[in-house]
Amino acid sequence: MPAERKPVIAVIGASKCSKKLRDMAALVGRYVAENGGVIVCGGMGGIMEGAARGAKEAGGVTIGILPTDNKADANEFIEYIIPTGFGDARNIMVVRSADAVVAFPGKYGTLSEMAFALLAGKPVISVSAWKLGDEITHVEDPIDAAELAMKLARGSQ
Amino acid sequence: MPAERKPVIAVIGASKCSKKLRDMAALVGRYVAENGGVIVCGGMGGIMEGAARGAKEAGGVTIGILPTDNKADANEFIEYIIPTGFGDARNIMVVRSADAVVAFPGKYGTLSEMAFALLAGKPVISVSAWKLGDEITHVEDPIDAAELAMKLARGSQ
Amino acid sequence: MPAERKPVIAVIGASKCSKKLRDMAALVGRYVAENGGVIVCGGMGGIMEGAARGAKEAGGVTIGILPTDNKADANEFIEYIIPTGFGDARNIMVVRSADAVVAFPGKYGTLSEMAFALLAGKPVISVSAWKLGDEITHVEDPIDAAELAMKLARGSQ
Amino acid sequence: MPAERKPVIAVIGASKCSKKLRDMAALVGRYVAENGGVIVCGGMGGIMEGAARGAKEAGGVTIGILPTDNKADANEFIEYIIPTGFGDARNIMVVRSADAVVAFPGKYGTLSEMAFALLAGKPVISVSAWKLGDEITHVEDPIDAAELAMKLARGSQ
Repeated sequence: MPAERKPVIAVIGASKCSKKLRDMAALVGRYVAENGGVIVCGGMGGIMEGAARGAKEAGGVTIGILPTDNKADANEFIEYIIPTGFGDARNIMVVRSADAVVAFPGKYGTLSEMAFALLAGKPVISVSAWKLGDEITHVEDPIDAAELAMKLARGSQ
Repeated sequence: MPAERKPVIAVIGASKCSKKLRDMAALVGRYVAENGGVIVCGGMGGIMEGAARGAKEAGGVTIGILPTDNKADANEFIEYIIPTGFGDARNIMVVRSADAVVAFPGKYGTLSEMAFALLAGKPVISVSAWKLGDEITHVEDPIDAAELAMKLARGSQ
Repeated sequence: MPAERKPVIAVIGASKCSKKLRDMAALVGRYVAENGGVIVCGGMGGIMEGAARGAKEAGGVTIGILPTDNKADANEFIEYIIPTGFGDARNIMVVRSADAVVAFPGKYGTLSEMAFALLAGKPVISVSAWKLGDEITHVEDPIDAAELAMKLARGSQ
Repeated sequence: MPAERKPVIAVIGASKCSKKLRDMAALVGRYVAENGGVIVCGGMGGIMEGAARGAKEAGGVTIGILPTDNKADANEFIEYIIPTGFGDARNIMVVRSADAVVAFPGKYGTLSEMAFALLAGKPVISVSAWKLGDEITHVEDPIDAAELAMKLARGSQ
């Protein structure tokens, strides 16, 4: 019997951020998990940790695609760890693994991820992230972002 | 609550192979799934498909790290798909994602995977794969290979 | 005797563009070559081909870091070809190989390259490329861009 | 006028080795340079440094494709530096950049490079490196290896 494939949502953003932003990312993770989706992220701290924590608290599945080659570098909420050893080049794999992307504030690493998401034709929903043109949907509320991401992810499958 | 992490077994080998070898790989996948482990592989056909099928038939979890950038290229038994777009360089990620590696016959792609597994210090159990020296354990029976892989994977965690 | 290392300038931008933009990129390549620098680029068409042509016409050195794994895909003005097979992930290597970056208009691939350049702390001079904040210097004239890139590249060595 | 492309020879082997082996690698580098070829290697120490030194002493061109993302890690005989940041996955790019490969003794990193060279259909000449089957030519003398590599490289262009 073939594998059942759930919608996969990438959550991207800074590896160091305020508690408020981390909690907002956790709301996205929780919503996705509660609605049958999977969280993929870069596996490190900040936004990535928030999103993974939210998903795990709701009993969801989390995948972390690490920049380093060491599983021990993943945050504790990552269930399936891909230790790439490819540094920031792993960003392209994070967004390719997703059906939709929720972007939180971050610097140039986040910018590269948004660029690669757009290049791959993935829907990108921004919660206060980089403004890069019409292809990105900007929302203020993280739950709205998660809901839209899940809807677009289901549509693309 | 932190994520619970199961032992991860990589199964590597040719993307085109005999039915007999595919079924042997399926036995490894089934044993790993039945004993609480996760299968990671390259996500394509042949040995990879056999291992993923065996794991899914036993209700297990399968991760496929694809050479292409297209999720649609994964075999139907892959639940979590990482479409790298990195071609054969993705081999290094397959073995890094595992706690132990079971190697079936394959050509130079499989050889590169075995080399990277040994370079990363992962235990490698060979079922008729390349002979590369004392660090590889050679067994004939796929169930024996799976059992040893799970034991070594649990030991390394 | 150690190798003498010349300043390396990356020229980035769309792989398909107008003749006018290609000729502007050629002016950058020519200036860099005439002033003792090396051109590195993604090795394909458009801006990359323009820059490489300008450098070769002035007797300079050109390096092309290809997305594909096939040397035959390089444009004819590339002297040293690195066929990565890593797709757009090779963008990170193009800018890391440079001491300064001149960016022409391009879409999301170019945006990812600019992001990685900024992430790596490389000086970025934009000729009508993406506006991403204060760390990028915007100039209109390609010769001005080339002159500034060479000056900054020499300063960073 | 299109770029003139010289035969490119990859020299691979351990990053730490005896002076005797380093000097043998230098003989390969020198022969290639004296006969109009280019040396590509992993840019680090040991065999890679020997080959690059030999080529530079003869006025040749050297390209180093580094595992790290830092140009400063290249050995002093590398003229053109590609700092990948991809760790051992850069091995696949070293051999893809070559028209023929000369392999000296090394451990699993060298083995992965030989595997990728064979996978890419590149001719591999071994000077006491891994024995992997009929597709590799084994010679004892480094000058013989260099001569054969240059002949095969010219044939493949």
